Amino acid sequence: MTSTATFDLATRLADLSRQVDDALRHMLPPGNTRPAILHEAIRYAVFTGGKRLRPILCLAACEAAGGQPDQAMPAALAVELLHTYTLVHDDLPCMDNDVIRRGKPTVHVAFGEANALLAGDALQALAFRQAALQPLPSGIPPDAVVLELADAAGSTGVIGGQVEDLAHTGAITDASTTEFIHRHKTADLFRAAIRMGALAAGANHTVLESLTQYAVNLGFAFQITDDLLDAAETTGDKTDQPEFNCVSVYGRDGARQRAEKHITQALQALEKLPGPTALLHAVADYILTRTH
Amino acid sequence: MTSTATFDLATRLADLSRQVDDALRHMLPPGNTRPAILHEAIRYAVFTGGKRLRPILCLAACEAAGGQPDQAMPAALAVELLHTYTLVHDDLPCMDNDVIRRGKPTVHVAFGEANALLAGDALQALAFRQAALQPLPSGIPPDAVVLELADAAGSTGVIGGQVEDLAHTGAITDASTTEFIHRHKTADLFRAAIRMGALAAGANHTVLESLTQYAVNLGFAFQITDDLLDAAETTGDKTDQPEFNCVSVYGRDGARQRAEKHITQALQALEKLPGPTALLHAVADYILTRTH
Repeated sequence: MTSTATFDLATRLADLSRQVDDALRHMLPPGNTRPAILHEAIRYAVFTGGKRLRPILCLAACEAAGGQPDQAMPAALAVELLHTYTLVHDDLPCMDNDVIRRGKPTVHVAFGEANALLAGDALQALAFRQAALQPLPSGIPPDAVVLELADAAGSTGVIGGQVEDLAHTGAITDASTTEFIHRHKTADLFRAAIRMGALAAGANHTVLESLTQYAVNLGFAFQITDDLLDAAETTGDKTDQPEFNCVSVYGRDGARQRAEKHITQALQALEKLPGPTALLHAVADYILTRTH
Repeated sequence: MTSTATFDLATRLADLSRQVDDALRHMLPPGNTRPAILHEAIRYAVFTGGKRLRPILCLAACEAAGGQPDQAMPAALAVELLHTYTLVHDDLPCMDNDVIRRGKPTVHVAFGEANALLAGDALQALAFRQAALQPLPSGIPPDAVVLELADAAGSTGVIGGQVEDLAHTGAITDASTTEFIHRHKTADLFRAAIRMGALAAGANHTVLESLTQYAVNLGFAFQITDDLLDAAETTGDKTDQPEFNCVSVYGRDGARQRAEKHITQALQALEKLPGPTALLHAVADYILTRTH
């Protein structure tokens, strides 16, 4: 890839991220809608300078499946709202009890615990509202996008992964538990983002399967590189119990090799798609090489 | 109404409640699905001997709109799952901090606070899954049922009412705040239940509007009789702060009169519907005369 192409891709990713921000700003109830504190809390949670990785994957998958990226914007917003609610609830005192996220007080610190709980609950409802608003080409079942999101979000998806993660905090455990947690806590929402984008483009079964392979591998790689970054950060003065993570199960070199293997498999899955895959390649590169 | 008709209606309501229970039992992931504690917590929350009022309203509205009641079962389950999740979250320590519901320890007492939070979150996702699975006759937009649920569940619906209710706990306030809280905390989900049932039957605009009038009035009456029952129960040794409620704003007689007025308006709205309205009449009678 030439440096011009790389530059263009970075610009396109930044543009998509901005488009997602603009669309979120436009669709969320204004901060002064009654109850004002709830709508302020929702906007505070949504606009924290996140990279918008999941919605970008949704839009990029729509393009790779032969559509225009912005065709999948409602689905992309749905995924980001769902992701945001999980972060708000994860930060609560009864969960990870985090007081800072991206350098700002977490929602429950800024707005109180009850309002944070309820802001998360409302964000999940808003996510499903957006999923229902996604226009779908004929041939795609009308409930397909909502079902993708519901399955990813539910008790055998993200929430299931979260419960198992909490149950194993502080205890190094077996590889099958690692895989269960990674698959559900992280990969399931990557998978839904990408499949929802593909469905918005009217993807056939073969295209959907290829993009699912990309998604699942990308999700695993993301969680592994997350754990590698955590391990790098916490060398030294970390006083908490050791977090259960991929590095503790496979070691740093083992974890790095697994991440590389997943990215290779993700890129192989992109080989026969009807639309451009440059954005999906760029995201895969970013995940393997990210430093934060 | 003859006593035979009353008996038949009571039997039909009990039958519908049992059908809802059976359908819930069938659709929820088995208690041993990984993570088992989460699926046990979900079943514990769903099977607490509730009256299944909201799903019955959904099925009854489907009948009143000219359909068969069980045509609306996915929508009915969606409403009950959504209602259940709001109860689980309302009971949490950062909200009402209730330790007993229907004579049993609340979900967070039985399963821990994090698992209760996550069980509630998963129940909301399951609710939207069921809403998406509701078959709809041609002429009804395919996203109509999910949108009804999302609007009722969101920041300008149930959650909005909950936030305002928490903000006013312990402070008697003005009638417009009372109305805001009742409309959103309670009436919005009654309204969604009934409209979702009507949509499942393929209701036209006029039918949908009549049932909406029934629903809104029923929801108000329900909240008022709830407050009257609370006031009757708490005479005497209640040591908490006085709860903000309808009785404190309108007085007992005033509240009772408002409940009766809403039920009269609800029954008037049933006059020109294409299907049988006996079940909807029975629910209205029940709400006005209930003793618990």
